[in-house]
Amino acid sequence: MSLKHVGRQSVSLPNPPSIITTACVVGKKEGEGPLRDTFDHISDDAYFGQKTWEKAESQMVKLAVTKALDKAKLSASEIDFVFAGDLLNQCIGSTFGLRELEIPMFGLFGACSTMAESLALGSMVIDGGFADRVVAVTSSHFCSAERQFRLPLEYGGQRTPTAQWTVTGAGAVVLAAEGPGPYIKHVTCGIITDEGIKDANNMGAAMAPAAYSTISAHFNDLAVSPSDYDLIVTGDLGALGAEILLDFFKNDGIDLTPNYNDCGLMIFDRDGQDVHAGASGCGCSAAVLCGHLLQSMRSGRYNKILFAGTGALLSTVSAQQGESIPSICCAVTLSNTK
Amino acid sequence: MSLKHVGRQSVSLPNPPSIITTACVVGKKEGEGPLRDTFDHISDDAYFGQKTWEKAESQMVKLAVTKALDKAKLSASEIDFVFAGDLLNQCIGSTFGLRELEIPMFGLFGACSTMAESLALGSMVIDGGFADRVVAVTSSHFCSAERQFRLPLEYGGQRTPTAQWTVTGAGAVVLAAEGPGPYIKHVTCGIITDEGIKDANNMGAAMAPAAYSTISAHFNDLAVSPSDYDLIVTGDLGALGAEILLDFFKNDGIDLTPNYNDCGLMIFDRDGQDVHAGASGCGCSAAVLCGHLLQSMRSGRYNKILFAGTGALLSTVSAQQGESIPSICCAVTLSNTK
Repeated sequence: MSLKHVGRQSVSLPNPPSIITTACVVGKKEGEGPLRDTFDHISDDAYFGQKTWEKAESQMVKLAVTKALDKAKLSASEIDFVFAGDLLNQCIGSTFGLRELEIPMFGLFGACSTMAESLALGSMVIDGGFADRVVAVTSSHFCSAERQFRLPLEYGGQRTPTAQWTVTGAGAVVLAAEGPGPYIKHVTCGIITDEGIKDANNMGAAMAPAAYSTISAHFNDLAVSPSDYDLIVTGDLGALGAEILLDFFKNDGIDLTPNYNDCGLMIFDRDGQDVHAGASGCGCSAAVLCGHLLQSMRSGRYNKILFAGTGALLSTVSAQQGESIPSICCAVTLSNTK
Repeated sequence: MSLKHVGRQSVSLPNPPSIITTACVVGKKEGEGPLRDTFDHISDDAYFGQKTWEKAESQMVKLAVTKALDKAKLSASEIDFVFAGDLLNQCIGSTFGLRELEIPMFGLFGACSTMAESLALGSMVIDGGFADRVVAVTSSHFCSAERQFRLPLEYGGQRTPTAQWTVTGAGAVVLAAEGPGPYIKHVTCGIITDEGIKDANNMGAAMAPAAYSTISAHFNDLAVSPSDYDLIVTGDLGALGAEILLDFFKNDGIDLTPNYNDCGLMIFDRDGQDVHAGASGCGCSAAVLCGHLLQSMRSGRYNKILFAGTGALLSTVSAQQGESIPSICCAVTLSNTK
């Protein structure tokens, strides 16, 4: 029997890998939000010097990885594996962004849960002794996402109150077998949930059941409770999704409110930045983690965080065929102590 | 230093996981090819009882996993993780196919290298002690692929001589910490290559450099040579790609021909089935591995195989934007002995 597998969905890492460095790169709007001081690079140019939004997204990936490596004083050749994915069709944000770096790559698809999924797999591969150093990276771009999933930007369509604004951003984490922390101590892998939500403008409602499923499994598998964490943070449920998640736990007699937040509610000023229900996109939880959250851990404001990435597993084709929106949530625990 | 990491790209598994069971599900055309007797299920219905080709692909995923579990006398709840991905936008073949099985999931994107990538990650997670049993699964469907990547089938477009025929098929592998073999002993992770090929109807030429890169790295990292294998098999290079690969090695003074083959050249009768340069699609190497190759290992015809999945990392958007086609190849060694 596997001794590191705990309960149905969780894993305990006996030699928890350390986050060495992180870097995050965002667009102008994100750079005007409340977390503006936590980003490594803010671009006023939505194209990041490229000719298309998709190439811009790849450029962000490259910038984020390069900056994270620079901070760690590591070259790409010293990284054993990169774990990467995004929401563009066939993950071209990641593949074209990483093309020139020549790091052995495992491509992932976890939708907006990719930052957590890449940390989960990267940390297991290190703890298992297969690698000394890996990079985990993901990205999203408002313009490439809008035209792929919704409508041409030129159309100027009105957004519904439950809509979330896709973050233009990329975040990269360098993980290593040895380091000063924060450490990744546990992983809880997600099971796909689907409560029948079909409104592609209401991702929060679609993803809340997945967040509830994984966070509940985490509590049960590891016999922990919300008070064991300084912060429990979901990826991008937005205002409605976060409210639903809190309701689910309230029905179980668990009050998550004292130490719960959602990256989708943190990166923009909802009153001043016209983002409706909040933020979304793979880059949302990536940029918030790689900037604000890890800086808050290093400063000692937070010592233990449950980081739960949330992803909606729809495509335009599945939506057009009348399908509901399956979702998944992958969680990792980050701790300042081993 | 990680003791299991060997050279730049490879990993050695000290407690090699065993393939317990496999299952493969294919369409009518595959069922008329030379490997017809090796498949678990051949459907005369391209829709697999569903209303759309995309739902058919998901149905194949579900059937393949269910059949592999049935053979192993395991329920879905006894599987720790499933590693899955495909080439439909946002991997809906995998996610909708696995939605009802409730297995903790890690979604992957490796294009047509996904069967090898899922075995690579699944076997590391087992060898690392994080799981006792995992499932690796992938799929493709000729009709869903054609309309997503190329043209509406109704258009009846003519195919170029270098074009490959996407396999309608899914393959699932149950891997476990203990078992009678074949065992996964090594993994060689791919580095993205891009030699500037832009012809989306010539995937073989785009992917051959990736296959060469990974197989060369495998030889170097592990100090092995072609004669150490009964068979070195690539995923879906097709006729032209396979020829290019053999040429690359010939330039290095290595003759791969005696024990080399390509799944894309095995699943169809190229003379009789009008498939031009051969077969492709995530389901190609998956169905050939889960049927013919593993049956040939169990019968003792082959004792050691290097299985090298090959994937082209383009999207319609990257092609429309004039980009070349990056590719990747992930390889695992399968051996009848530990």
